[in-house]
Amino acid sequence: MSPIIVHGVPGSPYVRMPLLACEEKGAPYRLAAMPFGTTKTPEHLARHPFGRIPVIEHEGFWLYEADAIIRYVDQVFPGPSLTPSDPKAQARMNQVMGIVDCYVAPPVLGIGFNRIVAPMFGLPVDEETIAKGVEPATVAVRALEKLLGNQPYMAGNSVSLADLMLIAQLDMFPATPEGAKIMKGSSLLGWIDRMRARPSVQATDTQKLMAAAQRA
Amino acid sequence: MSPIIVHGVPGSPYVRMPLLACEEKGAPYRLAAMPFGTTKTPEHLARHPFGRIPVIEHEGFWLYEADAIIRYVDQVFPGPSLTPSDPKAQARMNQVMGIVDCYVAPPVLGIGFNRIVAPMFGLPVDEETIAKGVEPATVAVRALEKLLGNQPYMAGNSVSLADLMLIAQLDMFPATPEGAKIMKGSSLLGWIDRMRARPSVQATDTQKLMAAAQRA
Repeated sequence: MSPIIVHGVPGSPYVRMPLLACEEKGAPYRLAAMPFGTTKTPEHLARHPFGRIPVIEHEGFWLYEADAIIRYVDQVFPGPSLTPSDPKAQARMNQVMGIVDCYVAPPVLGIGFNRIVAPMFGLPVDEETIAKGVEPATVAVRALEKLLGNQPYMAGNSVSLADLMLIAQLDMFPATPEGAKIMKGSSLLGWIDRMRARPSVQATDTQKLMAAAQRA
Repeated sequence: MSPIIVHGVPGSPYVRMPLLACEEKGAPYRLAAMPFGTTKTPEHLARHPFGRIPVIEHEGFWLYEADAIIRYVDQVFPGPSLTPSDPKAQARMNQVMGIVDCYVAPPVLGIGFNRIVAPMFGLPVDEETIAKGVEPATVAVRALEKLLGNQPYMAGNSVSLADLMLIAQLDMFPATPEGAKIMKGSSLLGWIDRMRARPSVQATDTQKLMAAAQRA
């Protein structure tokens, strides 16, 4: 099958999601790297009317929305299924995917961006966003611990799309002072270790992707 | 199979989603109506750590997140499938579900709540939220028109989970002055008419649900 072309800014957790899915499936892909700050150009708005990333292109089929993209990659490529067949396990996967979008991303990205990305680019650090993120991020982490329970992965014994979405958002979080405090002693730290041991997570490491894009 | 018990506040578009799915599937269900303003009680937080609605209970299995719930209902009950089997059509369904959550709900609920619900309950009308919602709601409506194209439903010839999520959010919108203006001449008006002709949409009419809850 032809490769998936992923349009997006390297370093974005949302762009990392389809890359993770392609790596897990062994699906061919190419990252068409967009420079930082180009998501609202007319060229990109023609691909994505909301001016967000990622967008994929596959054999003439264009698709945006990270959740829809990784489900599509899982469905059309051979390789290990990233969706549990048991309806209750599949429901947990879908639930965690929803939680990541609605409850994890806003506070965790707010804290991660201001503690890690902003200083890296010399941008102002918004302490108010950080402070406001602590309580909702804590609630989200506790809810995910409860859903993880004693399972190795979020939806059971095998990695699923939920794990891919979550690691993309949570990978940098323990490196922030707020994240370190919230996650101290959390069962999610063991889960992060398991995810980081996967070749998919290593191949899509944020620093590595950003460095590769700068070389290209 | 045992009925699905849906915990939620009648009138909420998110609570309407599982009801619509159960109606379409012919699945037995019961709405365990919660009074307005009770989503942050200890009792409800034990069911839903983020204090939102709906939550379902099915044969001892508890689940929150509307998207995960309607996928579960579609999967475990017999009746017409609400998920297209073709991968590209399924991707469109998932894409529209993501668009509804990320881009439709925030501005459309902001406008709908302040123009319709707030006056009904004598609450203050937040004109700033309304004004801020006009541009993003317009972008979302135009994007959905493009995805609908000449199809009768959002993901093709049959109704899918995407249509159910979208009608729950969009049903009241044309009744607001801002919604009427944005949707004037829109192909989505024909889609709304098709959806309103469905018994599932009629059975879960917001006014009807609210009246039934007050009688109970």
